[in-house]
Amino acid sequence: MRVLIVGGVAGGASAAARARRLCESCEIVVFDRGEYVSFANCGLPYFIGDVIMEEADLLLATPELFAKRFNIEVRTRSEVTAISASKRTITVTNLRTGVEYLESYDALVLSPGAQPFRPDIPGIELAGVFQLRTIPDSVQIKAAVQGARRAVIVGAGFIGMEMAENLRLQGLEVTLVELADQVLPPFDPEMAILAQERLEENGVVVRLSTSVTGFRDDGGLAVDLSSGETLPADLVLLAIGVRPETKLAKTGGLEIGPRGGIVVDDFMRTSDPNIWAVGDAVEVHDLLTDNWKLIPLAGPANRQGRIAAQNVVGRDGDHEVSRFRGVQGTAIAGIFGLAAAATGASERTLLRAGIEKFGKVYLHNDHHVGYYPGGKAIALKVLYHLGDGRILGAQAVGEAGVARRIDVIATTIQHGGTVYDLAEAELAYAPQYGAAKDPINVAGMIAVNNLEGNLPLADWAHLADTEASVIDVRSPKEFASEHLQGAVNIPVDELRQRLHELPDHKIWLICGVGKRAYYATRLLRQRGFDASNLSGGMKTWRALAASGLAAR
Amino acid sequence: MRVLIVGGVAGGASAAARARRLCESCEIVVFDRGEYVSFANCGLPYFIGDVIMEEADLLLATPELFAKRFNIEVRTRSEVTAISASKRTITVTNLRTGVEYLESYDALVLSPGAQPFRPDIPGIELAGVFQLRTIPDSVQIKAAVQGARRAVIVGAGFIGMEMAENLRLQGLEVTLVELADQVLPPFDPEMAILAQERLEENGVVVRLSTSVTGFRDDGGLAVDLSSGETLPADLVLLAIGVRPETKLAKTGGLEIGPRGGIVVDDFMRTSDPNIWAVGDAVEVHDLLTDNWKLIPLAGPANRQGRIAAQNVVGRDGDHEVSRFRGVQGTAIAGIFGLAAAATGASERTLLRAGIEKFGKVYLHNDHHVGYYPGGKAIALKVLYHLGDGRILGAQAVGEAGVARRIDVIATTIQHGGTVYDLAEAELAYAPQYGAAKDPINVAGMIAVNNLEGNLPLADWAHLADTEASVIDVRSPKEFASEHLQGAVNIPVDELRQRLHELPDHKIWLICGVGKRAYYATRLLRQRGFDASNLSGGMKTWRALAASGLAAR
Repeated sequence: MRVLIVGGVAGGASAAARARRLCESCEIVVFDRGEYVSFANCGLPYFIGDVIMEEADLLLATPELFAKRFNIEVRTRSEVTAISASKRTITVTNLRTGVEYLESYDALVLSPGAQPFRPDIPGIELAGVFQLRTIPDSVQIKAAVQGARRAVIVGAGFIGMEMAENLRLQGLEVTLVELADQVLPPFDPEMAILAQERLEENGVVVRLSTSVTGFRDDGGLAVDLSSGETLPADLVLLAIGVRPETKLAKTGGLEIGPRGGIVVDDFMRTSDPNIWAVGDAVEVHDLLTDNWKLIPLAGPANRQGRIAAQNVVGRDGDHEVSRFRGVQGTAIAGIFGLAAAATGASERTLLRAGIEKFGKVYLHNDHHVGYYPGGKAIALKVLYHLGDGRILGAQAVGEAGVARRIDVIATTIQHGGTVYDLAEAELAYAPQYGAAKDPINVAGMIAVNNLEGNLPLADWAHLADTEASVIDVRSPKEFASEHLQGAVNIPVDELRQRLHELPDHKIWLICGVGKRAYYATRLLRQRGFDASNLSGGMKTWRALAASGLAAR
Repeated sequence: MRVLIVGGVAGGASAAARARRLCESCEIVVFDRGEYVSFANCGLPYFIGDVIMEEADLLLATPELFAKRFNIEVRTRSEVTAISASKRTITVTNLRTGVEYLESYDALVLSPGAQPFRPDIPGIELAGVFQLRTIPDSVQIKAAVQGARRAVIVGAGFIGMEMAENLRLQGLEVTLVELADQVLPPFDPEMAILAQERLEENGVVVRLSTSVTGFRDDGGLAVDLSSGETLPADLVLLAIGVRPETKLAKTGGLEIGPRGGIVVDDFMRTSDPNIWAVGDAVEVHDLLTDNWKLIPLAGPANRQGRIAAQNVVGRDGDHEVSRFRGVQGTAIAGIFGLAAAATGASERTLLRAGIEKFGKVYLHNDHHVGYYPGGKAIALKVLYHLGDGRILGAQAVGEAGVARRIDVIATTIQHGGTVYDLAEAELAYAPQYGAAKDPINVAGMIAVNNLEGNLPLADWAHLADTEASVIDVRSPKEFASEHLQGAVNIPVDELRQRLHELPDHKIWLICGVGKRAYYATRLLRQRGFDASNLSGGMKTWRALAASGLAAR
């Protein structure tokens, strides 16, 4: 069997190695138009930032290693330009010699990846305007950083954020320009704002709701913004997302989906029975919203490559096949020591998918018990189905323990688990590693209380126009330092004695992070008051207000 | 309704607070024979070690707080000495005044905890021989540390390990004496040895398979060991486990189980319909082995307290009840910067429970990608059912990312998940936070390969008497530095060219950590050789050999 693989990074490299492990007798050839295969594209911002010192460190495997270890032929600088699905051939151009030739296959695996989006902006072709996708890209940017003083990054997604950090730590003045009204689009605004604040604390200038209208050579490079502002720059990075690379797939007549990605089934097979496709170029099934999506992430790409190979090769001639379970969008980024991680759907994603029956809780528990020194607060938001309590998504931002909590919730989502499961989770605890009631447990308990009617949650979005009286149950000292407009202060420990001061209509309770207000909510509801809790307390309010999602 | 709670730490404190949140009108009284309630017993070793500086930091809640915030009466220094289940009364002795009195209840919750085991050893009553369970215990030990030079710790479980670290870091010479032939009994020996080595690297002397035969006043304190050795000591800590406190339960005629703990049902109710029990004193259902066990851990105690309260109080008068799902034994301890964590059953536990049809894989992947600086290896062992691939248990030891991986596996176990689920898990990845193929994914993939027949695993225990030829597929340089007796070196990259050198009988393949040997196993099996992999490679061999579980 002759297996040809187009694209030698992540999905393609995984497919090739897995195919060999299952089929020693297969002929396996990998084509890549670039100079390198199997390189660490997620490491490129840190290579530019001199965190990863050597270019060689980025090479996870070389063509020589593929040859020696796996008996796989890798042809670099070899662009596959056309597929004839009926003849089972591909057309290859050797970019070193210009020679074009045909290769035939029994099975073809496409892992062409995605290209950085380059919008049609005047001057985008100017020297000094970079994109970051390959090692040569990163080498160019690294060279440009030498002697540069001012950088403009367009796009505040994961790569934009990581590059802002790495360029800033190299001493550059960095401005981050983002079309949306928030950074980190996979996050809801009140979580993303925490990352934005961290950027700004570290001297990165953030311009939201702003687009680039043009680049000009004005002696140096000048970046014109929709705001009318012009930013001088020694270096510009475009990080405004990627588009699936489907030109080749189209030559083979493969079905392309409504989002512009290659259509595959659960077995990573395209519309042609002899062609599979994996990685950033394919549309994947989103497990939370049941939609198909483009989710360019390394983890799924690697697993898809493995699964495609298993289906290509089969085992022992039988028809055993391997299914890709879909994607839930687990991701994480580091921003100046802060980790921002998410899994499942955001609130916005749910609403877009027409899923409106969800609850949300906020908490700010430390990553380990407070009595052990060094605890760092994790801002955690969990979204769940208001019927059965199924977890729909979670976002977490903090300096420690963030990946761990998101991974636990990701695993719970993988198993269709609920907030009841979070409440009951038995996690590793010692004082320096967590809490007997881990933030995960507490998130689950709050949501269960909400689901079971014990803890109605007030709607932050209506803080400005609610008829409820807001009662702040913190200490007078805390109240004095900052409080919601119109809030009345009755400390939780005095509440039982001061019930006569309370109105007989709707009451919204608030405290620092939601815990004392929860006690107060329970107390008041049992005494017949119509009380609700403002989840996450003043800490969440600050983030919501800064994002324009709650009244100031 | 009158709810009385005996014991005000962890389970009892949780039950009291939860009962109040669900029942504002209940009368709730907590009795504790000690001076403190709701203190951080897990923090005591670190208080002694001056990591936690203030005694006040250990107090999670005071009687005053319980009174003001929760309207719960807490009676400290009040020992409950008898229960009359038929009359629904308890007998209380005020330890301050000696006055004895009766209290009646509608519901009684017992959270008496466990007492440190004090074996019948001559001299155990001598001054300087301590146990650690309460704040006064820790204050005494802290005082004894001043001016002490030599400490002997008896018992190398979690508390013994933590105390060894804390006393050593205070500058004491520390000897850890353990009856078993390993430290950390919840771990299998080849994992526990990693913690032992870390102790020894930090100057703790470890004496295994050794018991204390007596304590003597020999001018100073002298500790006689079964080995014949006598250790002079300024301070001795007994940390040889705890025994459930059931004296009180017995006065009420409550059923005591075969392991000496109070018997409860899934709703934490004892054999008496008006009495519930929670925490270290009760026998709990082990989800992995289906046995009942004593598992004294803070997390389950807290959740049990909550559940008992929910069942005691019910809601709105209906009969809604709350079920405790059982215990899987997730735990973690820190040892001089090393974390040792486990969830589910150990190999030994499985064998004791008669479960023999399990597979095991070892790996040593870094906690994040190797190309990003600072990656720390995690030694990970995963046990799974050889039929359906269900996860039975896991153990991990390393300097970073250990709790996270064990928590993901704990969550998978909670949902009855399999090694297939680990392989497919979608976890948070960025270069500084993990890997596109996380150690969790890799563990799952190895086990799936094993289950599906692609990767037979050799039995380390038969390294000495196997008829297999051991082929080491590392580089000649690695082979030269250390290798298994009788092993033959054929580097993996030369294997295809040197097939003629291989024997036609059983072959066991080994490399550094198992990865190259895996490639070799796949290659050879497809070429018709009877090849198996020595899981975890030389790194696992070193641990097994040091534990006496594999031939040197």
